[in-house]
Amino acid sequence: MIIDGMADRPLEELGGKTPLEVANTPNMDQMAKIGINGIMDPIKPGIRPGSDTSHLSILGYDPYQVYTGRGPFEAAGVGVEVRPGDIAFRCNFSTSDEDGIIIDRRAGRIREGTSLIAQKINGINLEPGVEVIFKESTGHRAVLVLRGEGLSDQVSDADPKHEGKVPKEIVALDDSEEAQKTARILNELVKTSYEVLKDHPVNLERMKNKENPANIILPRGAGAVPEVQPFHEKYGLKAACIAETGLILGIGKITGMDLIEAEGATGGIDTDLNSIGRCIMDTATRNYDFILINIDGADESGHDGILKEKVDFLTRVDSVIGQVMQLEDVIFILTADHSTPISIMDHTGDPVPLIIKGPALRVDDVEQFSERAAAKGGLCRIRGSDVMNIVMDLTNRATKFGA
Amino acid sequence: MIIDGMADRPLEELGGKTPLEVANTPNMDQMAKIGINGIMDPIKPGIRPGSDTSHLSILGYDPYQVYTGRGPFEAAGVGVEVRPGDIAFRCNFSTSDEDGIIIDRRAGRIREGTSLIAQKINGINLEPGVEVIFKESTGHRAVLVLRGEGLSDQVSDADPKHEGKVPKEIVALDDSEEAQKTARILNELVKTSYEVLKDHPVNLERMKNKENPANIILPRGAGAVPEVQPFHEKYGLKAACIAETGLILGIGKITGMDLIEAEGATGGIDTDLNSIGRCIMDTATRNYDFILINIDGADESGHDGILKEKVDFLTRVDSVIGQVMQLEDVIFILTADHSTPISIMDHTGDPVPLIIKGPALRVDDVEQFSERAAAKGGLCRIRGSDVMNIVMDLTNRATKFGA
Repeated sequence: MIIDGMADRPLEELGGKTPLEVANTPNMDQMAKIGINGIMDPIKPGIRPGSDTSHLSILGYDPYQVYTGRGPFEAAGVGVEVRPGDIAFRCNFSTSDEDGIIIDRRAGRIREGTSLIAQKINGINLEPGVEVIFKESTGHRAVLVLRGEGLSDQVSDADPKHEGKVPKEIVALDDSEEAQKTARILNELVKTSYEVLKDHPVNLERMKNKENPANIILPRGAGAVPEVQPFHEKYGLKAACIAETGLILGIGKITGMDLIEAEGATGGIDTDLNSIGRCIMDTATRNYDFILINIDGADESGHDGILKEKVDFLTRVDSVIGQVMQLEDVIFILTADHSTPISIMDHTGDPVPLIIKGPALRVDDVEQFSERAAAKGGLCRIRGSDVMNIVMDLTNRATKFGA
Repeated sequence: MIIDGMADRPLEELGGKTPLEVANTPNMDQMAKIGINGIMDPIKPGIRPGSDTSHLSILGYDPYQVYTGRGPFEAAGVGVEVRPGDIAFRCNFSTSDEDGIIIDRRAGRIREGTSLIAQKINGINLEPGVEVIFKESTGHRAVLVLRGEGLSDQVSDADPKHEGKVPKEIVALDDSEEAQKTARILNELVKTSYEVLKDHPVNLERMKNKENPANIILPRGAGAVPEVQPFHEKYGLKAACIAETGLILGIGKITGMDLIEAEGATGGIDTDLNSIGRCIMDTATRNYDFILINIDGADESGHDGILKEKVDFLTRVDSVIGQVMQLEDVIFILTADHSTPISIMDHTGDPVPLIIKGPALRVDDVEQFSERAAAKGGLCRIRGSDVMNIVMDLTNRATKFGA
């Protein structure tokens, strides 16, 4: 169970304490008491992980080997059946004027009708042998997947990053023919998307309502879908992924887990924690050997730099821990994927606290769940890449290396 | 700030304490109190580091990749502008009799006149296309650099290690033509050096004074100058190196740092610590992002096995810590490059204590700076290769790996 971005740094306004040290978390503290504690570097000490690279590392996949960018995970997370070799992109629905100037990168933060718009792009034929897969995500976000021979993820972005500019021409980032070809197709797609979408009924309706139309597609963040050994093959564990965001659901999808979305889960601090708790307890009764759980709200409040929200959310998430503590005969691991300090408003490379609860563990004398208390625990300091090996050992699934 | 060889093992004569535990170091203890502590394996647990390999590792260079021998660093440290591919050697000025027997490996521990002698060797022409660069270091020490095509560092030493023997013939250590050629040039150099130096005015004067003449050059410790990415390129940090010994100055030089030598710095226990302190405080006011500091005396007393000297030196070096603690808005790291236990009189693979002091750190409850107190700190146990990643993270210069 990964509480996204939970860990933090001491804050003056908390008298030198961290949000987790201040939050009222009796269940987490109880778990620290009956478990074994330590700190973990999700990737390596000092390395600032993304949520994606951290989850990969914790699941035993080396992000330096398999991570090519967020595109493939975002695409998988919204339900595109990506395959190794596909080139995936994060896209924005944007607004172009008649002269080709981007006047709104987020198309008036469009919420409705993107599915209908996406259908006009999905399956578009730009080049023989290259399939265009396009799907809306939440709001103004979408994903694009190019599938076919001779493609490359070594291409630049179309998104000009600022309004008032034309889309950037996408260029090849290396000398390969594959990159040239991919760039050509993408430029064609950006141009074509405007032709196809400018008079789309959803957009005509938006313009009537004085809303910016979603009349152009701007791809960025190219990544080749990596060849990843499925989790159940790697470990022999039938696994489910309970997560709130497309990125983490995409990690679950690409590693071959069953995806489970709790009703009312928003990925924000307004998420329905009761529903997530019930979803976990329900999934635990089903036939899974392993459940990856990600709850995202603490990361959001960290990125926003809103201290009170983070402390409140940690206090509220504690109730979910109270529920899962009732599960018996499981190895339960509570940790974070990275620190998202209020003072930094982004991920940092500080280690995160970690508890393992289960039978026959070398329980230590840590009595509180926090960044500093955990550092005195019996696990000392481990890495994300150690976690699955420890799980396999503690569940007696590991085989002996040697005689 | 690296106190060379500071760490040690418990000693019976100290009632089972280490020199650092016994030394009166109120400033280091204060730093431990307000910082975060841990132990560090400069290379890996149990590996006995040299000062050079340890410094490389702490600076984020893998010594297994870039270290070929001390020669290149010694040469760079005395001001030779070495280039990648150069073959560098440590040399002794020695004394040969007329029959070619080495009667004094250190030429009467010559102190004066070596610069004049070196000028006769520097630039000597032994082989077309191979440049001979030769420069005196301190005392009987000198460095030799061969520059040109088709050279190799796979050659043996000329130094016979004991008086009363002729210089060893230098031989190729592999089958390459490059090693054969390099060995031939070196043997020629040893022979020629005697011809050129035996009647040198400095030597005639020495013989008149019944001092052994510096009439032959004995090279050893061949190493090819490695291709090293400059520190400022690797990290974007403008860096200075304040050090006392040629070896560490050479590390600074080869990694592209500005070299700063404090007046009165000797590299021994007699060094002028006040001057070093002033030099640090002065350098800190200049336009640097990073300063590497090495103070060498504790290592010397460790190698000599003189307990009282080591305890005294650590007590005195504490005043420098008192000065640097006044620096604000810096991340300050205090550590050692290795242990040089009094009982072993050489480097060992024991981990070294380390403090990080700076804003917004997860300060722990360690209240003393020592090998054992540090092991209870919030950093637990890290490696030398983690240090720069942690520095980049804590100074918000790190970029996120992933999304």
